Amino acid sequence: MSYFDAASSVPLHPVATQALHAALDEGWADPARVYREGRRARLLLDAAREAAAEAVGCRPDELSFTSSGTAALHRGVAGALAGRRRAGRGLVVSAVEHSAVLHAAAAHEAAGGTVTEVGVDRLGRVSPAAYAQVLGADTALAVLQSANHEVGTLQPVAEVADLCADRGVPLLVDAAQSLAWGPAALDAGARWSLLAGSAHKWGGPAGVGLLAVRKGVRFAAPGPADERESGRAPGFENIPAIVAAAASLRAVRAQAAAEGARLRTLVDRIRTEVPRLVPDAEVVGDPEHRLPHLVTFSCLYVDGEALLHGLDRAGFSVSSGSSCTSSTLMPSHVLRAMGVLSEGNVRVSLPPGTPGADVERFLAVLPGVVAEVRAQLGAPGGESAPAPAARAAPEGPAVVIDALGRRCPVPVIELAKALGGVPVGATLSVLSDDEAAKLDIPAWCGMRGQEYVGAQPSAKGGTAFTVRRLS
Amino acid sequence: MSYFDAASSVPLHPVATQALHAALDEGWADPARVYREGRRARLLLDAAREAAAEAVGCRPDELSFTSSGTAALHRGVAGALAGRRRAGRGLVVSAVEHSAVLHAAAAHEAAGGTVTEVGVDRLGRVSPAAYAQVLGADTALAVLQSANHEVGTLQPVAEVADLCADRGVPLLVDAAQSLAWGPAALDAGARWSLLAGSAHKWGGPAGVGLLAVRKGVRFAAPGPADERESGRAPGFENIPAIVAAAASLRAVRAQAAAEGARLRTLVDRIRTEVPRLVPDAEVVGDPEHRLPHLVTFSCLYVDGEALLHGLDRAGFSVSSGSSCTSSTLMPSHVLRAMGVLSEGNVRVSLPPGTPGADVERFLAVLPGVVAEVRAQLGAPGGESAPAPAARAAPEGPAVVIDALGRRCPVPVIELAKALGGVPVGATLSVLSDDEAAKLDIPAWCGMRGQEYVGAQPSAKGGTAFTVRRLS
Repeated sequence: MSYFDAASSVPLHPVATQALHAALDEGWADPARVYREGRRARLLLDAAREAAAEAVGCRPDELSFTSSGTAALHRGVAGALAGRRRAGRGLVVSAVEHSAVLHAAAAHEAAGGTVTEVGVDRLGRVSPAAYAQVLGADTALAVLQSANHEVGTLQPVAEVADLCADRGVPLLVDAAQSLAWGPAALDAGARWSLLAGSAHKWGGPAGVGLLAVRKGVRFAAPGPADERESGRAPGFENIPAIVAAAASLRAVRAQAAAEGARLRTLVDRIRTEVPRLVPDAEVVGDPEHRLPHLVTFSCLYVDGEALLHGLDRAGFSVSSGSSCTSSTLMPSHVLRAMGVLSEGNVRVSLPPGTPGADVERFLAVLPGVVAEVRAQLGAPGGESAPAPAARAAPEGPAVVIDALGRRCPVPVIELAKALGGVPVGATLSVLSDDEAAKLDIPAWCGMRGQEYVGAQPSAKGGTAFTVRRLS
Repeated sequence: MSYFDAASSVPLHPVATQALHAALDEGWADPARVYREGRRARLLLDAAREAAAEAVGCRPDELSFTSSGTAALHRGVAGALAGRRRAGRGLVVSAVEHSAVLHAAAAHEAAGGTVTEVGVDRLGRVSPAAYAQVLGADTALAVLQSANHEVGTLQPVAEVADLCADRGVPLLVDAAQSLAWGPAALDAGARWSLLAGSAHKWGGPAGVGLLAVRKGVRFAAPGPADERESGRAPGFENIPAIVAAAASLRAVRAQAAAEGARLRTLVDRIRTEVPRLVPDAEVVGDPEHRLPHLVTFSCLYVDGEALLHGLDRAGFSVSSGSSCTSSTLMPSHVLRAMGVLSEGNVRVSLPPGTPGADVERFLAVLPGVVAEVRAQLGAPGGESAPAPAARAAPEGPAVVIDALGRRCPVPVIELAKALGGVPVGATLSVLSDDEAAKLDIPAWCGMRGQEYVGAQPSAKGGTAFTVRRLS
């Protein structure tokens, strides 16, 4: 098996395993107690905090351990907003933040606050100018990820932090995807006010997040009071896991430059080879300014879920932002914000230590798996393609394809098959009630050099997407 | 070293250690993913949920794992209150709940809700009749612990649950101290609506709590949305720790009856011997209807912090509810609610497996440690007692002792030394601004057969506590 979903979670680093075992014996007592088991636990906790603070680039007394990265983000957003309530109730986030940030933003909005989303370009990158534009007098907090978790694009954290600092707005950086990679992926020296991270993303155990709040940043912890972790993270400290998290952070950081460079070349192989080996595939995300270990691509006429299952059977564990792999049947909000193809989407994120041979094997296997899924769907170029369900319309588009009730990637497949039947210069409409169509039909047009005319509500339900054949 | 603070935390059970190590290898991936590492993690999580649900006495789909017992209580209280918001905003708690519940109640009050505290008797027990009295039409939730964490008294959970059920009010049971002991300490079959627990209290790892919400109980999870754990506990599941927690719960339950009976006899030894071996000591809490492993006593004329340090040096780790051991310089709210002596307070809670010889050694060491602390303080009966700072007053009490600025147990020591100097039938006042005096001066009078006349604000600051010498 090759596990290629490091951005979701990585196995425990050997250093973490070792530290955890030792700390289970030494760190199980309450660090608030004065007896020796308590003092021993406190020493372990203090040492872990120092190590983690050094890796993060803050003072130990600025850093609290939370119960997860999600908790760090939820509490960081709520605490900073509450601390700045007098300044205003405005929250600024990028459109491609992790769902934990977007959920915190939704909760803020539900409680009467305002949320402004800053869009991204087709590479998934926010523009500092766009941030500058929306920072207002009532902005209490801005949030920006250090790097995108789905496409790997690094964000201009230092520039946005400067803009925020100049306007007196605290910036919370979601560094979940970057802490393992250190300064290169973290915009070291950026003037952030709060920073959040998650240990199981860097080889630490689950159950540990971290939240750094710079001295001087106004912060009012949400929820019931609790004396643990400077009042910022309630509940009995999970010291063995915290010790293991800090130890593994140091260990991965020590290897980050070398291992990052090695994985970068493997990812470059994927970025180059996938479009060459797989017809109608698009690699998304910034090709240069990106995380070293992560690459995302999408494949036309492919059902993402079937692709994941096919790759799983072939021994590869990857994730996908396709709508069919989501419980909401919506394509990933990141791909939507970027306006890129979402069907047949695959995210590959290589854990440290991934052998180059595994990547070569992936490249050897992928084209066959994609072809098989396409064949099953009757995709253009695949086998056993059924005749398209097209009919002539008396007015408007030459052809209307009724794909109502059909899920991604069927509407795009039907479009591709039918467009060959209309004259160059004529239009065709696809009726679809699938969320992915909004994203994938324009993306298909871009990839195939056809004109995307637009979308409008259809009298039959769903949306009519109109495309003009250009070639 | 003998660690006698199981009510705070216990070391990892060997079964938990074993389960944790195995699950670290198998359960690190995201259980929401479809690839094999994710499916393996999901299987482990499902099996742990079934095991824990069986031990708790609920259905697996009623049980969520949280990041701590505190989180279970915070989220349980907030979620049940929000779910019942239409019914009203009244919250009923006992006065001796864990601080996590009282903090959740304070947060509810700060947000405009109402909180009613039900008092306890001198044994620390609530009366079902008192609960019945305060359950009103606008009561959204009632909370009651299964057993008190400081004095071990079992609460009448089944009776209170019936009262609540009859009135349609959900009851949340804080079972943190009881889950290890099973039905005997849990009022098995009680008609609770919600139940919370904490794994590190039963030999599981830190970082795992559990929250059970019975089907049909209205519940609206607080804070930002998150799809994990039925939406009730946000953040990536800590599966290795959850697996270890469930395994250790089964293991301790299998031994609970036998080990409970054995520890009960050890605790009985302490309950009998401490008052015999240590002059002016009082054992508090219910002597019969109690947790098997826990006993609390207080010693007159003793500084709790010095006593903890003395016992620590002698090799015993215990905790205390004395004011001097608290960051707020307040005696424990449990001892205050019971109206019992708080000075020189010691809680002994024996972890499973405690050898009887350790308890005997504790009983052998305790009298000397208490005597030493008393001697250092110049307590009555100790050595080098300084003359009391008493002076005659022209009117009112025969003698006024100025103990302003002096901390527990000094005001009581001064009182005890000075009372011998006033005639039988005459009164004496102690001026004190120490929070513990409110509790300890009346308690001292009760223990020594003197009359506690009352307290009133003093012109010199603090409070004047008046005592009449009866013998």
